[in-house]
Amino acid sequence: MFFHRQTLQYRAKPNEPDAVYARKLQEVIGGQYGEITVAMQYSFQAWNAHIPGKYRDLLFSTAAEEFGHVEMLATMVAQLLEKAPLGITGDAVQDDPTVAAVVGGTDLQHAIVAGAGARPVDSMGNPWTGGYVTASGNLLADMTSNLNAEMQGRAQVARLYHMTDDSGVRDLLSFLLARDTMHQNQWAAAVEELKADGLEQMPVPSNFPQSKEASEFSYTTYQFSDGEHLSEGAWASGPTPDSKAEFGYQPEPMAGVPMPPVTHPDARFYGTTELLNVAEKMAGTVQDKLKRE
Amino acid sequence: MFFHRQTLQYRAKPNEPDAVYARKLQEVIGGQYGEITVAMQYSFQAWNAHIPGKYRDLLFSTAAEEFGHVEMLATMVAQLLEKAPLGITGDAVQDDPTVAAVVGGTDLQHAIVAGAGARPVDSMGNPWTGGYVTASGNLLADMTSNLNAEMQGRAQVARLYHMTDDSGVRDLLSFLLARDTMHQNQWAAAVEELKADGLEQMPVPSNFPQSKEASEFSYTTYQFSDGEHLSEGAWASGPTPDSKAEFGYQPEPMAGVPMPPVTHPDARFYGTTELLNVAEKMAGTVQDKLKRE
Amino acid sequence: MFFHRQTLQYRAKPNEPDAVYARKLQEVIGGQYGEITVAMQYSFQAWNAHIPGKYRDLLFSTAAEEFGHVEMLATMVAQLLEKAPLGITGDAVQDDPTVAAVVGGTDLQHAIVAGAGARPVDSMGNPWTGGYVTASGNLLADMTSNLNAEMQGRAQVARLYHMTDDSGVRDLLSFLLARDTMHQNQWAAAVEELKADGLEQMPVPSNFPQSKEASEFSYTTYQFSDGEHLSEGAWASGPTPDSKAEFGYQPEPMAGVPMPPVTHPDARFYGTTELLNVAEKMAGTVQDKLKRE
Amino acid sequence: MFFHRQTLQYRAKPNEPDAVYARKLQEVIGGQYGEITVAMQYSFQAWNAHIPGKYRDLLFSTAAEEFGHVEMLATMVAQLLEKAPLGITGDAVQDDPTVAAVVGGTDLQHAIVAGAGARPVDSMGNPWTGGYVTASGNLLADMTSNLNAEMQGRAQVARLYHMTDDSGVRDLLSFLLARDTMHQNQWAAAVEELKADGLEQMPVPSNFPQSKEASEFSYTTYQFSDGEHLSEGAWASGPTPDSKAEFGYQPEPMAGVPMPPVTHPDARFYGTTELLNVAEKMAGTVQDKLKRE
Amino acid sequence: MFFHRQTLQYRAKPNEPDAVYARKLQEVIGGQYGEITVAMQYSFQAWNAHIPGKYRDLLFSTAAEEFGHVEMLATMVAQLLEKAPLGITGDAVQDDPTVAAVVGGTDLQHAIVAGAGARPVDSMGNPWTGGYVTASGNLLADMTSNLNAEMQGRAQVARLYHMTDDSGVRDLLSFLLARDTMHQNQWAAAVEELKADGLEQMPVPSNFPQSKEASEFSYTTYQFSDGEHLSEGAWASGPTPDSKAEFGYQPEPMAGVPMPPVTHPDARFYGTTELLNVAEKMAGTVQDKLKRE
Amino acid sequence: MFFHRQTLQYRAKPNEPDAVYARKLQEVIGGQYGEITVAMQYSFQAWNAHIPGKYRDLLFSTAAEEFGHVEMLATMVAQLLEKAPLGITGDAVQDDPTVAAVVGGTDLQHAIVAGAGARPVDSMGNPWTGGYVTASGNLLADMTSNLNAEMQGRAQVARLYHMTDDSGVRDLLSFLLARDTMHQNQWAAAVEELKADGLEQMPVPSNFPQSKEASEFSYTTYQFSDGEHLSEGAWASGPTPDSKAEFGYQPEPMAGVPMPPVTHPDARFYGTTELLNVAEKMAGTVQDKLKRE
Repeated sequence: MFFHRQTLQYRAKPNEPDAVYARKLQEVIGGQYGEITVAMQYSFQAWNAHIPGKYRDLLFSTAAEEFGHVEMLATMVAQLLEKAPLGITGDAVQDDPTVAAVVGGTDLQHAIVAGAGARPVDSMGNPWTGGYVTASGNLLADMTSNLNAEMQGRAQVARLYHMTDDSGVRDLLSFLLARDTMHQNQWAAAVEELKADGLEQMPVPSNFPQSKEASEFSYTTYQFSDGEHLSEGAWASGPTPDSKAEFGYQPEPMAGVPMPPVTHPDARFYGTTELLNVAEKMAGTVQDKLKRE
Repeated sequence: MFFHRQTLQYRAKPNEPDAVYARKLQEVIGGQYGEITVAMQYSFQAWNAHIPGKYRDLLFSTAAEEFGHVEMLATMVAQLLEKAPLGITGDAVQDDPTVAAVVGGTDLQHAIVAGAGARPVDSMGNPWTGGYVTASGNLLADMTSNLNAEMQGRAQVARLYHMTDDSGVRDLLSFLLARDTMHQNQWAAAVEELKADGLEQMPVPSNFPQSKEASEFSYTTYQFSDGEHLSEGAWASGPTPDSKAEFGYQPEPMAGVPMPPVTHPDARFYGTTELLNVAEKMAGTVQDKLKRE
Repeated sequence: MFFHRQTLQYRAKPNEPDAVYARKLQEVIGGQYGEITVAMQYSFQAWNAHIPGKYRDLLFSTAAEEFGHVEMLATMVAQLLEKAPLGITGDAVQDDPTVAAVVGGTDLQHAIVAGAGARPVDSMGNPWTGGYVTASGNLLADMTSNLNAEMQGRAQVARLYHMTDDSGVRDLLSFLLARDTMHQNQWAAAVEELKADGLEQMPVPSNFPQSKEASEFSYTTYQFSDGEHLSEGAWASGPTPDSKAEFGYQPEPMAGVPMPPVTHPDARFYGTTELLNVAEKMAGTVQDKLKRE
Repeated sequence: MFFHRQTLQYRAKPNEPDAVYARKLQEVIGGQYGEITVAMQYSFQAWNAHIPGKYRDLLFSTAAEEFGHVEMLATMVAQLLEKAPLGITGDAVQDDPTVAAVVGGTDLQHAIVAGAGARPVDSMGNPWTGGYVTASGNLLADMTSNLNAEMQGRAQVARLYHMTDDSGVRDLLSFLLARDTMHQNQWAAAVEELKADGLEQMPVPSNFPQSKEASEFSYTTYQFSDGEHLSEGAWASGPTPDSKAEFGYQPEPMAGVPMPPVTHPDARFYGTTELLNVAEKMAGTVQDKLKRE
Repeated sequence: MFFHRQTLQYRAKPNEPDAVYARKLQEVIGGQYGEITVAMQYSFQAWNAHIPGKYRDLLFSTAAEEFGHVEMLATMVAQLLEKAPLGITGDAVQDDPTVAAVVGGTDLQHAIVAGAGARPVDSMGNPWTGGYVTASGNLLADMTSNLNAEMQGRAQVARLYHMTDDSGVRDLLSFLLARDTMHQNQWAAAVEELKADGLEQMPVPSNFPQSKEASEFSYTTYQFSDGEHLSEGAWASGPTPDSKAEFGYQPEPMAGVPMPPVTHPDARFYGTTELLNVAEKMAGTVQDKLKRE
Repeated sequence: MFFHRQTLQYRAKPNEPDAVYARKLQEVIGGQYGEITVAMQYSFQAWNAHIPGKYRDLLFSTAAEEFGHVEMLATMVAQLLEKAPLGITGDAVQDDPTVAAVVGGTDLQHAIVAGAGARPVDSMGNPWTGGYVTASGNLLADMTSNLNAEMQGRAQVARLYHMTDDSGVRDLLSFLLARDTMHQNQWAAAVEELKADGLEQMPVPSNFPQSKEASEFSYTTYQFSDGEHLSEGAWASGPTPDSKAEFGYQPEPMAGVPMPPVTHPDARFYGTTELLNVAEKMAGTVQDKLKRE
């Protein structure tokens, strides 16, 4: 069950309206790594969890917190739009370059569709999609995804911090940055704890028997580009992070095998084929069949 | 520049056609974590890189390898579809439950659209989308994303391994599993090397000055659900993974602040507002304006 | 702020696993009129509200309730998938028609992607999208949208009720049906109260001055098809629901006006145009310009 | 069958080209509530109708009219783009703020893709999608959806009216506003007539037996937020709009039930689980199975 | 203006309901090359046309015809669904393999969402999207697109023909096949007439001055794969179809040029860069700036 | 297998950064007819090919070349963004109209998401989608699609050529224009060769027996609009391009047939129907059934 309180976790009040910046903030509401994504992702990971206790508690708690972040940002966007220009005419644009910029830089649906309100979209107007969510049931994989999401999210908020000088907006961003710092640390800690608790190891999934892998390819870097420095990295020699092998390095790709022959599906798919005589016969068959049908 | 050789990295030949399994394989071609995603993701990360040398070489090389994986899987799908049923009638279904299953379980566009060929879609028929790609210019964040992608990908291939008993298909999967093992280790090693090289640290982005954060919220777990075990994890006490603090724990959310007042945008957005007298005046204004217009 | 309690509003426990039905339930989780839609729609309407008090309280409260419905359904889906088949082989299909049906009828991503868990998608696997959300700031319009959403939703749940004979599943559906009944009545009551409170009237938006309409077309039904019964409805005669006019009826469309001439944009758009000589001249101009460039 | 006449229902000719406004108009062509949506929605409702006569005649007739609205708007957009800037250079931008605004505010695909023509997209460039269409076979639900669509549509056109001072554009909008007025009244009248004809009642679907609902939850408002005014609305006391009950009000959510235990699907899904010993055994089983395979 | 007549162009009545086939038919309603695509594509090409007369008349006429094809197919789908199974239970599946197949093979939204009606989606349930439409203003390009659309469409209908033995369905398909034959011929004829009328030539757009091309690359085939037969085709030697040159052939790619150096954007984008000292300085600058802000 | 070389096919270096133009270039990277589309389309056509030799060699070779074009454009975009504005404030906008334009005209995700890098999206920010790809197995259809793609692509590049005066950018475009010229000629030549080789003819698919068509409709133009010039085109008289008939012309549509009766699916779909008594009975049945359930 979810409950709502008409209180925000932190201040979310701009000094001045700024319809262009409102659009930019949409990225961290409804973008690939916006707050809707993390709120939904942590929720689905919790609902799909196969283990009660601290990990699921962490997922549920962080999910609920993130829905509150969506709320803070949506509230901020509505305020930034409070003086959004509506009736701009050519004359106004002629006279004022700021007006000109605003004309071009706003999310037009903020005005036309939402009547000066927030929307579940990113900064380019793409609707948020469930395709952004990761919830596989494997917590080591999923919490690595969460760690990445908080990294991407904090980088985006940091960039947004530099795109405004409104101290009210920056105040809200300072809170989001802090929580992203917390959540990066949290998921990093959880990833380590999963391993320490013996629940999962690399390579994920760790209890798939590696004897079933084509193991001659499991720990070797092959060179598919012509960069000169590929062999200089930690991925080309030394022990592997999963502690099971040493990295190898090959300056060329594997030899490979010839492609299998092209396929020849049923002639009634009407694909183009080289087997002319056969094709004719098959076509004949088709026409025979069709005549009988 | 990309070049192509009419050779596969590994064998990709099924023992038997299996149109239902062909559909399942689409997940690792065109799904969120399929081979198109990683091929495109590593390519864009390389093109957006701001640092030449080993990291970019690794991105270019792995990207090219992954395009070859798309090819191997597409080739496999075409072969699995080689005997795809086309002209199934009600009678055939009546007589044979396998036929019945095939009717229901195939990707219908394999037959109707592609003429028994592979498609850039996932196992439920959703087209691959650029919205899956992550390439932020920040290599620590992006390579964490890559690590997650290889974990999700290997888990999916492992599940697919159990969904067939065709030894030819399993042979190909054993190769993909091995390369996913390699790539998990590779990105984990690269993540550590980025830190060791002093290029980036947690929290990402590490050179955003934390003094600008609302730092009282940077290292504390707040409880937003009612799970009893939240405080038991490594995220609730002890040193933080970024080595900058100790985790704190609060069994309740932060007190928060009241929501700001509702907004009152221009009356010509025609939103519903409580300020009846004002609204009437504003509406009057609108109508005055409109009369003059 | 949102909070979470590890309690469900109502029982959500199936008697038996049923992976095919799990897929069907996805429609009311992540479909156009699923619970994610109403939870997000009511949230954005509340965040975009321009009027505090009972209407916004209703939006916030119902939004939070609907997130709980997502949770109940996701929990149900995970349980329905608990025995989801994974390792089905051709032999199994041969022997058991139920297995055959399951092969075809499941959401393949339930198994391959989510590891037997729920997903933010509909019953055909389309990811939920923010494009489903309506939140315009005009409460009469938006609550009419809400009324429709609860009607569509209840119709879908009623259909789903007939698609299972699992009493545990039906028990959950009986709760969702009841809440849909409540919410239909709630939004219908709110729509009337908005009018009674003098906040909005038909036609929406009611304070746009109708003197600006082409009012000769405001209350007349024109016949654009050849149905014989069009004039028999309440829309063809009698008073209009907005109480401002009488309906008129015309058995033919309006006479209309000739289309304006085709456009002739800048020749450098390279569109095909009839003005051959002019086009040549313009092309000449282009080539002149290009030579100078 | 559809027929076309090279005549418009009303004048659609701007006084002046305005490429920025052309983009804005796309919202009511290809947006969620644009003319393509209503044209397609009413068409599919007619094709899916289970009842001949006046309701279906109304759907067919209005559908055909709306395709004509798409045409009028597309024609208008092409004219607004007739002088769309193509060859703007940095110098031009430096000199003229209007040019600067135009650079930023246009739909770039109008120029690059359509060669100064209209497109089936909204004002932010999102392609129109069939996901906007509602056609359930239940006419009371569907016509409520139609009523909402015409409300949203008229609000959007009203906003667009204030965004231009071109009297030719406003002339076209005055026609669209009038038809939206008509269509709001039409669907409201049809909704009442459906009830008066005894075809459907609230709650939709009305012939699903309410005895199957968990009826203790069918007419009560539960408080899931902490707004103080929730109980003040018509949804908290008094008769319900479906005339079947009195509204109740509870200041707290229902007590609820504990969550069911977490699921434990087949170990070969490689989810993370707490049952370590069991997991090990299951993993053993997997490996045994795999060895045998 | 569009008008509708309650008449179909041809018979559209199946002998028997077939819910699985109803789903397959959705491909030619709402797929990439379905009837919605061509109806909308020809409409937008007509609205964007810059030349009145026979070409635009052809576009308008064919567009209206294609809307009628959507209608015939939607009508057919509704009839195929008339006996769609709704209340299937596990028992029914156990007993009847046809039921099993139907469970798996239907479009679940046909039942749950549309109440046994057609939908604007393809055979895998993807909603139709405006992204399928091509309308560039250049008629030679666009009519080549149309020619392709009718080829793809006819191939799909031909495949669908073999997937049923219902003579009523085949009767409708025989009509669609005939019209696709007509439309292929029509667009091929129009393409030739455009050239004969001197309106456009290859390469499209023909009045872009080829002197501005890097003409050493305009007529040469370079080998980027290792196929042995590339030079055997008409594209490797002999006159070019645009009659302006002879084809050349090079067994290797062009030599190319080194990649430009990596970019170094503003440090406040927080990308990873090799310029450690510089980066530190820039970071210092950032922190200085931030301190001052 | 694909390989990568850190070399570009041609120079791709702008004289000056230009973040607005970077956005425009995205169209030919990730748009409907951008380089990702052709690279993926030709790849899938090759993988789905049923005929080895020159045609497949051509597909593989051109596919690999096009991936290199994506690379050149992505590299160019990153350079155009190298000085992308980040920290723009209201003051800056006030002072400089170019800044104002840049604020409005850039792809905001270039900055916020990609950190001044390229993305797999079009110029309006829509992610690239697999729905753009055509690969049917029928080479005459598919290569006609390819011909169209190169026509659309060259028209777009030509328009982009006029939107900049940066000689470095134009230099790259001159190369792309040349290759589009080549590829238009190449596919036109291949289309003719396919026919000359006897592999396929019009109408596609040519070996579907035309005796199964409703051949009275196969070669006649029907007038569905009221344009006066329809009969003047080559599609209304004279020999058909497939050499099998003469075109006919009818100034009216075909007479058509009455629509079939409306459908009456199972009452448990809760559709609205006219058969009141029957409906009541059916509803009774439903309620009876439900009572028994």
